[in-house]
Amino acid sequence: MKYRIGLVGCGVVGRGFLEILAGKAEELKARHGFEAKVVAITDKLKGTVIAPAGIDLKKTLKLLETGQTLNDYAPAKSRKTAALDPLDVIAEIDADIIAEITYTDIKTGEPATSYIRKALQTGKHVVTSNKGPAALHYRELAELAKKKKRHFRIEGTVMSGTPVFTLCERGFAGNRIREIKGILNGTTNFILSQMEMEGMEYAEALTLAQKLGYAEADPTADVEGYDALAKVVILSNVLLGGSLKPAQIQPQGISSITKQMVLDAKAEGSRYKLVAFTRREGGKILAGVSPQKLPLSDPLTGVMGAQNALTFDLDLLGKVTIQGPGAGKLATGQAILQDVLAIHHDLG
Amino acid sequence: MKYRIGLVGCGVVGRGFLEILAGKAEELKARHGFEAKVVAITDKLKGTVIAPAGIDLKKTLKLLETGQTLNDYAPAKSRKTAALDPLDVIAEIDADIIAEITYTDIKTGEPATSYIRKALQTGKHVVTSNKGPAALHYRELAELAKKKKRHFRIEGTVMSGTPVFTLCERGFAGNRIREIKGILNGTTNFILSQMEMEGMEYAEALTLAQKLGYAEADPTADVEGYDALAKVVILSNVLLGGSLKPAQIQPQGISSITKQMVLDAKAEGSRYKLVAFTRREGGKILAGVSPQKLPLSDPLTGVMGAQNALTFDLDLLGKVTIQGPGAGKLATGQAILQDVLAIHHDLG
Repeated sequence: MKYRIGLVGCGVVGRGFLEILAGKAEELKARHGFEAKVVAITDKLKGTVIAPAGIDLKKTLKLLETGQTLNDYAPAKSRKTAALDPLDVIAEIDADIIAEITYTDIKTGEPATSYIRKALQTGKHVVTSNKGPAALHYRELAELAKKKKRHFRIEGTVMSGTPVFTLCERGFAGNRIREIKGILNGTTNFILSQMEMEGMEYAEALTLAQKLGYAEADPTADVEGYDALAKVVILSNVLLGGSLKPAQIQPQGISSITKQMVLDAKAEGSRYKLVAFTRREGGKILAGVSPQKLPLSDPLTGVMGAQNALTFDLDLLGKVTIQGPGAGKLATGQAILQDVLAIHHDLG
Repeated sequence: MKYRIGLVGCGVVGRGFLEILAGKAEELKARHGFEAKVVAITDKLKGTVIAPAGIDLKKTLKLLETGQTLNDYAPAKSRKTAALDPLDVIAEIDADIIAEITYTDIKTGEPATSYIRKALQTGKHVVTSNKGPAALHYRELAELAKKKKRHFRIEGTVMSGTPVFTLCERGFAGNRIREIKGILNGTTNFILSQMEMEGMEYAEALTLAQKLGYAEADPTADVEGYDALAKVVILSNVLLGGSLKPAQIQPQGISSITKQMVLDAKAEGSRYKLVAFTRREGGKILAGVSPQKLPLSDPLTGVMGAQNALTFDLDLLGKVTIQGPGAGKLATGQAILQDVLAIHHDLG
């Protein structure tokens, strides 16, 4: 079977996924018996291309690189796709899997949640790396998927391609998770690492992070802990059965951490990290984000720079930690592929 | 479907697996739709019990705890099972899955390899935590399994229940592995940790490891690197497509590392670890085991005590490290369960 994939959103993650699909078609067929064609790509800014026979991915990537739009893919014969609403594209195309990779709105989860709902309602599997729908509406969407006998997978929402959900599903099978604790924001981890290793003040390290593209012009979501909070809410709701909303929890960020605090911690053999956690405690599920001084013996302490890591406390295995990238074009593109291949293997 | 499982070997790992099955029957049914009965247990020292209707696991565990044998399970009506050859038990029982968990012989892989061959030939899936067959005969056994349309899974052979193969199959799907490097022997890692943290000489730390049960009376396999070598040969052959034999590679162990070397390394900001690696290089597959001074920035450097860890270098994700237990009754019992559940999910 050759999967028909539709992309909603074609920013960095979408291009990463297309690059991987284009570059690895033969390898994926040989190693996984997996074949796919992309039958539609729609993006609010970049236009729409629909091609039931399969879109030429290399041509599409070149269009986007050279500043053209998806509408330029086949200008002569094409439908008037420029004004198409993604909801209509999702509903009308013949696709097996929709990759929802539009921008994150962590307050409303829109328009991504509506896209996902429409895709599931019209019988498509959905994979997404979008934190909004996963943090705000996971339960509803997972139930809709179940009702429609379709997959709804969200690997890329927490640590890009560093495996979290596939790891838990297969690797930790049979375990109960008691606690999940980790470093879920690469920007703040980079800033704290610079403050310690280069002796920078917070403001100086933040400016460097912005210069390197790790932090945005308005860094609030990262430095005040909102990004890590959204991710730990996803972990809590999906893996611990919680039903938390990000708005219920006030994260504590790193903007009040000074160089002196970082150096004092170092002198006493510990290190500040922005730690996100969720655990069961007395029948309740707790979650939070705050800067913590971790001892050097903690596996999270060694996680430096823009990396992410999670420690799972499991009833059979004890503590297992996974560390890897938390962002990046190919890493997040691989998260989408990871979910698509999981669907392929589960269907096979 | 209720899986019928046969255990060959009933030492620590076998008892761990039985404890988990006995304690988690309801949880496994609710969460994974998984039901199983153990229809046979055979062990060269502890005898044999065969019960097609299902063995009472709690009763069996109590027998073994109180120093009785499996032959005492049902003395009155039982067959004369004491002298049964495990090969005959494997061939004759009606079982879906054989868990091969006898002792490791890294020179011959026997008798485990014969047991696995017989199980596959008579149509059973096989899961094992035994390094011998996996290091010496993986390819042959995997091909036999393929021919017989049965699963042959070996999760517990490298880091007990800390996921390696399930992680690669699902989590790293689509990636090419360029290098695998890690700490695969908890005993030597414990010794090196003690030498640094407690300022012990090698001999002193080894004695402590023996006292705590981390090292055997004859510690050669651990301290000279043979155990780590067998594990990295498995990784190389299974994940990189190598066809190495342990006897082709001379490992270098830690017995010549002195306290002074460890402290000098610490003073210069690095740390000795017994590192096992395998990688592709110029069309060839290399593997080795040797003590290496790693910089503090390496995720493996922070792995202290009897823990294990592996860093995978992947073409799409870059470096991903997983750290967790490398031994233990429940951890290795969970490795067996992990494989059994993977078979269950793949068949479902």
